[in-house]
Amino acid sequence: MTIILDGKALRDKLLGDLKVKIDKSEIKPGLSVILVGNDSASQIYVNNKRKTAEKLGIKSEVIEYPADVEENVILDKINELNQDDSVHAILVQLPLPEHINKLKIIDAISPQKDVDCFTTINYGKLAAGLEPAVYPCTPKGILLLLDEYNIDLDGKHVVVVGRSNLVGKPMSLMALKRNATVTTCHSHTKNLKSITKTADVVISAVGEVLIEEDMINENIIVVDVGISRDKNGKIRGDVNFETVCGKTSYISPVPGGVGPMTIASLMLNTYELFEKSLKRS
Amino acid sequence: MTIILDGKALRDKLLGDLKVKIDKSEIKPGLSVILVGNDSASQIYVNNKRKTAEKLGIKSEVIEYPADVEENVILDKINELNQDDSVHAILVQLPLPEHINKLKIIDAISPQKDVDCFTTINYGKLAAGLEPAVYPCTPKGILLLLDEYNIDLDGKHVVVVGRSNLVGKPMSLMALKRNATVTTCHSHTKNLKSITKTADVVISAVGEVLIEEDMINENIIVVDVGISRDKNGKIRGDVNFETVCGKTSYISPVPGGVGPMTIASLMLNTYELFEKSLKRS
Repeated sequence: MTIILDGKALRDKLLGDLKVKIDKSEIKPGLSVILVGNDSASQIYVNNKRKTAEKLGIKSEVIEYPADVEENVILDKINELNQDDSVHAILVQLPLPEHINKLKIIDAISPQKDVDCFTTINYGKLAAGLEPAVYPCTPKGILLLLDEYNIDLDGKHVVVVGRSNLVGKPMSLMALKRNATVTTCHSHTKNLKSITKTADVVISAVGEVLIEEDMINENIIVVDVGISRDKNGKIRGDVNFETVCGKTSYISPVPGGVGPMTIASLMLNTYELFEKSLKRS
Repeated sequence: MTIILDGKALRDKLLGDLKVKIDKSEIKPGLSVILVGNDSASQIYVNNKRKTAEKLGIKSEVIEYPADVEENVILDKINELNQDDSVHAILVQLPLPEHINKLKIIDAISPQKDVDCFTTINYGKLAAGLEPAVYPCTPKGILLLLDEYNIDLDGKHVVVVGRSNLVGKPMSLMALKRNATVTTCHSHTKNLKSITKTADVVISAVGEVLIEEDMINENIIVVDVGISRDKNGKIRGDVNFETVCGKTSYISPVPGGVGPMTIASLMLNTYELFEKSLKRS
């Protein structure tokens, strides 16, 4: 029997609990999101984040710049947010336009306000198995989802497809910290099927349909992080859900799986940074 | 036919070339090594490093402290070395005694003088696929050795056994950057043989004999990073060399494989940091 990893239900539960905490708190957590340019996907993401934050009572602001903004303008704003005690979490929505030095922008964020574990110092802690300020939202959300269904990664062979700095690589490192045997696959992997066939868990974060029914063994766990649209504009993941679903023990759908958990993690991370700042003051 | 990956020969070649460069330079590179306590293995390692450095014309000093030294004494010394323009590379020999906060000591080292990529900021760059000041000595040495024999990791399935922050994990990350499909195994891995059997390259960094002939396919590449002693006091690696050797296409012996390359990397890294400091001044 296949169990669907229901990210929406868990998001609602986690954010419901979070709202109770925030309601009780006199001071409210603050999340600032910087959005550069008019990438329509980014605008949708940022809008969802702001709406979710507002519902929870998080003070949320979106700072928008045109695509041709000068780097220094963004750096000055980040410095201002770093100093602002009412801002506990800062997110720079990626991608940034070509002329902006992404690394410089990201490392301008105070590590204590780095809500998606973007900065080099937090990333180094993550890689070394130490505690970053908070863990990156998408892999954190995936682990929360697996935890909810009592799926323990210890000793399991986790195959991560994708090696982006935002998802694939931190996912591999965090699964390793959970004592999984971890294989990281990507565009240069030869015969992906021969690897996914050996997995207990497949986590795919690529952005195109590539996990087919013949690529996995029976009763494994499949987590689908991909988001793309088919030719009819319908949202879909990396996994051919129709054919793969019945073969798995657990599978996350798209939409309704990892996506809602990423937003939930962002809210949880904002609150964690808020709590840590209270402890410091 | 099996080819032995000769780390001694490559070390001699690389360090011979390096000596020519250092001889020509009026200013000499400086390497400071901090050694705490009287761990005999550490003393041997540090002594080898100093002797190699001196032969090359690197100004080398070993700063020794008793096992009960106070943390602040080491921190003060590191700050002094950070300020000292004649010191280009700083190495804290691990392990440190229990009462010392290892992370605090390591992150006190200026990232620009961090000769083994220990600091969180350099580790973060490494993990994110950016350029750290220099790459960690042992995995760097392994890649240099593979390069010498024109072994390209791109698209190969590299199985790294061991996930230490010093060797296993950075090795996995650096192989990933070389476009290998990378599997990281460790003490929680179930049925290690089922994984090593799928490898094109096995890199073992554990410290006990565990790679046996029946665990690998024919004609793969085996790199042995392990160092331990058998009951007769003879140095050996993680690989049962006698039985495994003939089955491989390339194999690194112990001693004479990765060990000499680690020291060579330390010298190359010292010189790299020296060159970078000249460019900054």
